[in-house]
Amino acid sequence: MTNLLKGIYPPLTTPFVDDEVATDKLIGNITKYEAKMLAGYVLFGSNGESVFLTKEEKLQLVRVVREHTKRTIIVGTGLDSIKETIFLTNEAAESGANYALIISPSFFKNEMKHRTFLNYYVRVADSVMIPVIIYNVPKFTNVNIEAETIIELSNHPNIIALKESTENPARISEISSNVKPGFKVIVGTASILYTGILSGAVGGILALANIAPDQCIQILSLMRESNFKKALEIQNRMIPVNRAVTSKFGVAGLKAAMDLMGYFGGNPRMPLEPLSEAHLIELKMILKQASLIE
Amino acid sequence: MTNLLKGIYPPLTTPFVDDEVATDKLIGNITKYEAKMLAGYVLFGSNGESVFLTKEEKLQLVRVVREHTKRTIIVGTGLDSIKETIFLTNEAAESGANYALIISPSFFKNEMKHRTFLNYYVRVADSVMIPVIIYNVPKFTNVNIEAETIIELSNHPNIIALKESTENPARISEISSNVKPGFKVIVGTASILYTGILSGAVGGILALANIAPDQCIQILSLMRESNFKKALEIQNRMIPVNRAVTSKFGVAGLKAAMDLMGYFGGNPRMPLEPLSEAHLIELKMILKQASLIE
Amino acid sequence: MTNLLKGIYPPLTTPFVDDEVATDKLIGNITKYEAKMLAGYVLFGSNGESVFLTKEEKLQLVRVVREHTKRTIIVGTGLDSIKETIFLTNEAAESGANYALIISPSFFKNEMKHRTFLNYYVRVADSVMIPVIIYNVPKFTNVNIEAETIIELSNHPNIIALKESTENPARISEISSNVKPGFKVIVGTASILYTGILSGAVGGILALANIAPDQCIQILSLMRESNFKKALEIQNRMIPVNRAVTSKFGVAGLKAAMDLMGYFGGNPRMPLEPLSEAHLIELKMILKQASLIE
Amino acid sequence: MTNLLKGIYPPLTTPFVDDEVATDKLIGNITKYEAKMLAGYVLFGSNGESVFLTKEEKLQLVRVVREHTKRTIIVGTGLDSIKETIFLTNEAAESGANYALIISPSFFKNEMKHRTFLNYYVRVADSVMIPVIIYNVPKFTNVNIEAETIIELSNHPNIIALKESTENPARISEISSNVKPGFKVIVGTASILYTGILSGAVGGILALANIAPDQCIQILSLMRESNFKKALEIQNRMIPVNRAVTSKFGVAGLKAAMDLMGYFGGNPRMPLEPLSEAHLIELKMILKQASLIE
Repeated sequence: MTNLLKGIYPPLTTPFVDDEVATDKLIGNITKYEAKMLAGYVLFGSNGESVFLTKEEKLQLVRVVREHTKRTIIVGTGLDSIKETIFLTNEAAESGANYALIISPSFFKNEMKHRTFLNYYVRVADSVMIPVIIYNVPKFTNVNIEAETIIELSNHPNIIALKESTENPARISEISSNVKPGFKVIVGTASILYTGILSGAVGGILALANIAPDQCIQILSLMRESNFKKALEIQNRMIPVNRAVTSKFGVAGLKAAMDLMGYFGGNPRMPLEPLSEAHLIELKMILKQASLIE
Repeated sequence: MTNLLKGIYPPLTTPFVDDEVATDKLIGNITKYEAKMLAGYVLFGSNGESVFLTKEEKLQLVRVVREHTKRTIIVGTGLDSIKETIFLTNEAAESGANYALIISPSFFKNEMKHRTFLNYYVRVADSVMIPVIIYNVPKFTNVNIEAETIIELSNHPNIIALKESTENPARISEISSNVKPGFKVIVGTASILYTGILSGAVGGILALANIAPDQCIQILSLMRESNFKKALEIQNRMIPVNRAVTSKFGVAGLKAAMDLMGYFGGNPRMPLEPLSEAHLIELKMILKQASLIE
Repeated sequence: MTNLLKGIYPPLTTPFVDDEVATDKLIGNITKYEAKMLAGYVLFGSNGESVFLTKEEKLQLVRVVREHTKRTIIVGTGLDSIKETIFLTNEAAESGANYALIISPSFFKNEMKHRTFLNYYVRVADSVMIPVIIYNVPKFTNVNIEAETIIELSNHPNIIALKESTENPARISEISSNVKPGFKVIVGTASILYTGILSGAVGGILALANIAPDQCIQILSLMRESNFKKALEIQNRMIPVNRAVTSKFGVAGLKAAMDLMGYFGGNPRMPLEPLSEAHLIELKMILKQASLIE
Repeated sequence: MTNLLKGIYPPLTTPFVDDEVATDKLIGNITKYEAKMLAGYVLFGSNGESVFLTKEEKLQLVRVVREHTKRTIIVGTGLDSIKETIFLTNEAAESGANYALIISPSFFKNEMKHRTFLNYYVRVADSVMIPVIIYNVPKFTNVNIEAETIIELSNHPNIIALKESTENPARISEISSNVKPGFKVIVGTASILYTGILSGAVGGILALANIAPDQCIQILSLMRESNFKKALEIQNRMIPVNRAVTSKFGVAGLKAAMDLMGYFGGNPRMPLEPLSEAHLIELKMILKQASLIE
């Protein structure tokens, strides 16, 4: 089953209408994505605004997506609490999820070190019914899981992959070359898809894949054909777009770009603000320059 | 009722035995604290390990503490999700809590600014049945609520105080002198109790009050008698202790110090590690030098 | 002589005309400051743009200021290089400087710890002909000198004071109550003048004193008369101004404010940019609200 | 001449005996490096401890190295002061340096933005007699030069390259694909040699090249032969070593490793401390595991 981690996964945004989850809009997006060569979907990634969703909303979303796809579903069910993480993960698994993407606990930053991460991930992995993907994303958590910790955790039979959201492929090559055989590394942002794959990663969970799935897929297939030059060319064209829908304009920017690209984006949930008019104009220009819109 | 915010509140640690909540141990601690001139108790502050507790555990804890005290109970019920925050706060209120200490949302750090904080706190305060205390604690959240945001929020009828956990009293004086009359500022760490009170704060929610409630209370009463010199002297003696049970040794250190001072501390919950032997020795020396133990 | 450290010192800005040092403009400012009850002057503080000055320019500036005042002159002559620091300090001393304000070395951030700071300050203090004031300013250096390091260094006969530019008065009280008798602490920013003095500091080196010397002096004298309420009131009125001429608009803002207040400010040196028109308008409003201009 | 930037350059450490520059030890090292296929040498890089050297010491070092090599000499002569930078660079050029590696100004962090960097680099490049290489190293400077700033500066006829010391190759590909033709990017740390070259960089200025020049050169030549797998394998083996001689043990670690590898390392200059015994043992183990020593 771990083969399925190869390929491109969009971490789906969560559509809201009047600040409430709009499952019909999500189904609309899924229907469009089903026509693309995507490997599957991630629910409740950072840009899925999972921190704003209730447990009930999350489980409903898993069920709805499961009803509309046969592809792999990865769910972001990690919380600081081990108990809550196990409970939510197992409920999501019963609702149809295939893998659990478990973000590093982070509240007690000073205490989040080698031993603490081992404590956390081993206990979670021991008790959940689906395989665990470790999720390292310092820009949101302000903690970093060291390479040696990942390497040690890769020996656990139920920990099968890492989603690495730093832009540092040296970590990817170091980890890839030292983990238990079969353990996968997935890049977490489109700006290191090219170098990440060259360093040992097998696929990507990419915010960019919500708006430009074809380009993400194309980079990957060009690289499989060793056409590195062309792959890099496409990635370079996508870098300003990727920055716009992540660090620059955040989830509001990503959702606005989805609207511009024919998907349903809508507003982020409160307390987040929708994209300002000025930023929307800037975003359109960035998409235009990347030839994504006219 | 806001008068009750004057004084010293320990943010209670949560006792665990075999990694499960041990309410009897908490009752034991409360019984000892009831003999002290404390203004009340905070449940689910940062050092209460609230991120490791389930909703059910939290509500049970409120009920148990309510049964054993007539004092003010402040509950830390803030989560990134507005919906979840409102729900949990109202359940806690029904279980006996008097005020809600609402930590700033923080997951989307780049987006957490003036407008977003207004969105969040106004919506929460509009819908909860007990008054809201804003909680600013950048060392855990990595976001800071600007003074002007606090000042604007102080106009909301159901937002009545700020717990300020930076060590910067210039913020306290700026905020205190500009908020709506009646809005209170409470210091969030013992190292600025003295300067915070001199700058307009009315009390303190202090980790240190878990282990040295008398000293915290004494600083406050000396200041009310304008005996600043003696108050500062006691605080200076407490600074190394305060550092040990907060930034230096974290919640494990705080709990170990509680054990040394005759309260029940015990181990922090998984994934946190208990204090190492070497650190325990260092902690004992610090408590000794502050004349807290012999 | 250390008594002279009591009181208010403006860290003088360096006037430039056509990007070259304009000593006549500096003399003009000094002449105005001589009419105020200032304790002396600091040359080459952070806001003196010392990093943009050549050694020759620095020594010329010391000579010029010495010719126009009998007050204490403190020179900022600290560099990462011990050799260069000693050389420049002694040349400045021969040109008329009374004290050396030595900023912490900072280039190798990871290595800047207890032992390294001891190495540095002891070697410098052993070899310079004027007393040393330690200068801790993490916002520029990204390193922090721990309280215990300052306390140990206070035993050196030629290290006589600390300029503390964090906004954390708990550091000031901890240091003041533990250093060798006679060692002084000076606050480095106006926002903690009030709490700093209450915590053991004896004076201030304050960017704000370049534009509002009277208010800074008044805060200090009110506090000496135990009129804390009035002192805090003035400081609170000054906080937005202080922020504007430091963190908010930087040295360009400080210089623009000087121009508005009747001193010569002028442009910062290249590569810094002068204040934009929009920021100038904002700055004027802030000065107006603080009743510094009409 | 810019072709010469292709290849591997060690940023030479500066040997000290009794805390004074020991040019004979440097000549000894150079003699050994001359036998390797290195493209040239960098003097006064970060690990050259340039912040601890006087101007006279720097110029003497340039002259000495020039006498012992015909290879390219790159000098790190950037200072916050434009005047001082121009002066020192031109003196170094007259002493035999070929290129100037100009670190970003950084003291006024908040003000270091697009316009300020343009101001600085254009003025410096206009006035120095040798071509300028921009040096971006946030881990030391705490400022980052944005890609768009580099791209704009690449149009200046005397700005010919960038040394990029972040570990983020997405920046390298973005910059490489947008700069003026002929402008080169050089990686600044061995951990991104592999991905940096694949992203458009032409060579490396690598601390690691002081102790393992053959391995660095080999990675580069394997990549030129499109033997990516083998190149990555060697780099992966070197990553722990590279970390040990940079972020982990700093310049003291790099110098200790040089001693172990048959070069002269010696102690760093005061105030830095030599490597502790415990760290030396750890360092030896790391070198052993990488098969650099037995």
